Amino acid sequence: MPELRYLILADGDFGPMTSKTANSLIRYRADRVVAVLDRSQAGRTAQEVLGFGGGIPVVGSMREGLALGPTAVLIGIAPMGGRLPAEWRGWLLEALDAGCELWSGLHTFLADDPALAEAARRTGRAIHDLRRPPANIPVASGLAKQVDPFVVLTVGTDCNVGKMTAQLQLTGGLNARGLRTRFVATGQTGIMIEGWGTAVDAVVADFLAGAAEQLVLQGAKDADVVLVEGQGSINHPGYSGVTLGLLHGSCPDALILCHQPTREFIGDYREASWLRLPPLGEYVRLYEQIGSAVHPTRVIGICLNTYDLSEADARAAGERAAAETGLPATDPVRFDPAPLLDAIVHARDAYRHARAPRGSRAAAPAARG
Amino acid sequence: MPELRYLILADGDFGPMTSKTANSLIRYRADRVVAVLDRSQAGRTAQEVLGFGGGIPVVGSMREGLALGPTAVLIGIAPMGGRLPAEWRGWLLEALDAGCELWSGLHTFLADDPALAEAARRTGRAIHDLRRPPANIPVASGLAKQVDPFVVLTVGTDCNVGKMTAQLQLTGGLNARGLRTRFVATGQTGIMIEGWGTAVDAVVADFLAGAAEQLVLQGAKDADVVLVEGQGSINHPGYSGVTLGLLHGSCPDALILCHQPTREFIGDYREASWLRLPPLGEYVRLYEQIGSAVHPTRVIGICLNTYDLSEADARAAGERAAAETGLPATDPVRFDPAPLLDAIVHARDAYRHARAPRGSRAAAPAARG
Repeated sequence: MPELRYLILADGDFGPMTSKTANSLIRYRADRVVAVLDRSQAGRTAQEVLGFGGGIPVVGSMREGLALGPTAVLIGIAPMGGRLPAEWRGWLLEALDAGCELWSGLHTFLADDPALAEAARRTGRAIHDLRRPPANIPVASGLAKQVDPFVVLTVGTDCNVGKMTAQLQLTGGLNARGLRTRFVATGQTGIMIEGWGTAVDAVVADFLAGAAEQLVLQGAKDADVVLVEGQGSINHPGYSGVTLGLLHGSCPDALILCHQPTREFIGDYREASWLRLPPLGEYVRLYEQIGSAVHPTRVIGICLNTYDLSEADARAAGERAAAETGLPATDPVRFDPAPLLDAIVHARDAYRHARAPRGSRAAAPAARG
Repeated sequence: MPELRYLILADGDFGPMTSKTANSLIRYRADRVVAVLDRSQAGRTAQEVLGFGGGIPVVGSMREGLALGPTAVLIGIAPMGGRLPAEWRGWLLEALDAGCELWSGLHTFLADDPALAEAARRTGRAIHDLRRPPANIPVASGLAKQVDPFVVLTVGTDCNVGKMTAQLQLTGGLNARGLRTRFVATGQTGIMIEGWGTAVDAVVADFLAGAAEQLVLQGAKDADVVLVEGQGSINHPGYSGVTLGLLHGSCPDALILCHQPTREFIGDYREASWLRLPPLGEYVRLYEQIGSAVHPTRVIGICLNTYDLSEADARAAGERAAAETGLPATDPVRFDPAPLLDAIVHARDAYRHARAPRGSRAAAPAARG
């Protein structure tokens, strides 16, 4: 089966901080992206808009996009609430009629739309709703505590600060060091990139932690380290429940706190700004206390997203974050990720040492602080 | 329209701590309950099983129950995960054929069961799935911060410790004192009793806080005090996400911590016991810190469920909880609820004083500590 060639829909919102799904696809699977549809930026390239992505063109209509021969149309933005903008239905029908599959991470399932479902039947094309949860998720019961690999979860000071991107970078780095490291996708974009996972924010609330638990159990097979993709933020008025369910369901042994230094207020870029971000130390304290209420965990590093800072300012932000928290801090996408990779390796060694049988532990010097 | 007469299904699980929905119906709407079906306790009365409920009989078969002339069969237990025990389908078909409506708070919607749906169509009887969430719930955006009434949320040291029962008692007490007090139901049992509400644990996780926000906005109309029914516990491995989404979505001005003094481990009675309850003071700290990350709040009282203690032990437990936390503590169902009612009234006065315009505030002595 030939690999899919994607036309990404990101109308009105293609940009470094606004089209999270599109950008991740372009960063990690650029060879499969034929174009981005955004009427407001037609004629530019991904490189010009994002700073990466090379010559991938931005087109101004579905017709132009389809002329480039995609085999799938992928929804590349995650609008507030995750629902389908009404105007897009016509474009998606056009895409099905042109023989494309549809890929979507919206909360509104495309396959539940009668017109789209009928067109998919008629054209024999598949609709992939990545946020549709699996059936029969159990209530979590703490099983993730018991897995053998070292489990690391990214947590954030807000939504959309780079939690998934950080994990993907670190996964590559740890595998390069010889640690079998598995990225566990908990959101639609991660699922598109990894090919498996569950969008935990689309699960009925009572089963959210259970979904996270199942993902960790699956990711733990044949792995030394499991890196779980975080969601939301513990103080986000809309999404904190998702954050905590994921934290308690996945039972991470360590946390990496993700932050965008220029972010001042909680909430997506398009919301009113009414909740000021507390200092990083306050986040460390909150996450460690609430996380450890179910399974002992601690923050072992700060992962910065400095895309909107000069290199000098980005380095200064890293030093400030490290001084503030006493933890290694860097932007692992922009700079050398070694400080965070080292932090994970050291925390894992200490954890394994602490868990080792008494005899073997007595033979080695104490490690866990 | 005549009032419904309920036959309650609680097979194998009718008891003081196991059949939460059945018990609340019997406590608050006993006149509408014709019988309880539990084969393991047939021949007893509700009074004998629960210690309240008078002569409501426990029957051993659907046939016996239907002979007593119910107009509705209501699912009276909330099994782990909320799904329908397979054996019950036959009984529910029998009930529909006998002309009964069905009322259910299970996560598995009865109306989605083809056989039950078909029988309901054939018999013209309604199926009420109380956990089916309303359509188009928004993502929460902090609107509940702005309502005029004083908002109180019950929080718990575990599931099933009496959060709803406490609120219902306090609602009555506050109304008797002349404060227009609205109980806001967030679970299926509360909805059955109040006639409106949303089962927030059945909402897709991203919209859970939004559902809580909508409920508070609705409950705030023409009310002086809004008492929001709490769910789960902040350190429950399965349900903590629901607890935090409700806490951040409802923006309570004050919290009442509910606790069963004999409970040692987190988790429903039927689960393995692997997480020991921390001290009350630790819960107070966790709830205040994590709640105040979105809207300032504090715990103002401890509400005990002492059903399984002697009167002397129950009073001693109240004194111990008060000494441990420095807060008023009582079992408002068993003893005089005045300490908790006073706590709410005083906290509301202090809150209104603090929010009053500067001129009027300067005229009175400072109140909020």
